[in-house]
Amino acid sequence: TEQLVPEPSPETPRARPCKLSSADRSMRKGVMAHSLEDLLCKARDVLELPDKPFFLVLEEDGTAVEMEEYFQALADDTVFMVLRKGQKWRPALEQGSRYQL
Amino acid sequence: TEQLVPEPSPETPRARPCKLSSADRSMRKGVMAHSLEDLLCKARDVLELPDKPFFLVLEEDGTAVEMEEYFQALADDTVFMVLRKGQKWRPALEQGSRYQL
Repeated sequence: TEQLVPEPSPETPRARPCKLSSADRSMRKGVMAHSLEDLLCKARDVLELPDKPFFLVLEEDGTAVEMEEYFQALADDTVFMVLRKGQKWRPALEQGSRYQL
Repeated sequence: TEQLVPEPSPETPRARPCKLSSADRSMRKGVMAHSLEDLLCKARDVLELPDKPFFLVLEEDGTAVEMEEYFQALADDTVFMVLRKGQKWRPALEQGSRYQL
């Protein structure tokens, strides 16, 4: 018998929850992404970066995420910082270690 | 035979327990919500925000929750902070590390 109903590809990775952060950490949004490409598209939408080139780094330590397979190995709810050209990752000020100068 | 009785969509997600927190964390209430839209309605009722625009962020880290699919991926009993325009998420002061300046 014929099977005409399209099936989802068994190789399509499930969508995973991710967090997108602006470079200054003032904004953080939750999105779902199947792949690094999907996440880049969503970052473009969410952060309103229609034309400008940007890239993603791990918010915790600035590791650039450029490889699909590396993205797939990351945990759910990983926080990705969106950096435009010229922007640099900086460590977060830790709570409780914030000093007045 | 015809079926004229409307059935609930099999895709209607089950109601999940959620917690709503005020921006200053002085109030926290438990509600059930099927969807992000449902949760927004309940937040409006519970926090008595009849007309004012507001949005929801995760209480733990300020992640904005704007996407239905992201909402669906969250765990039961997630705490959502309700923020009105101009209000900002701030990290909770941890007990035991609260210093007077």
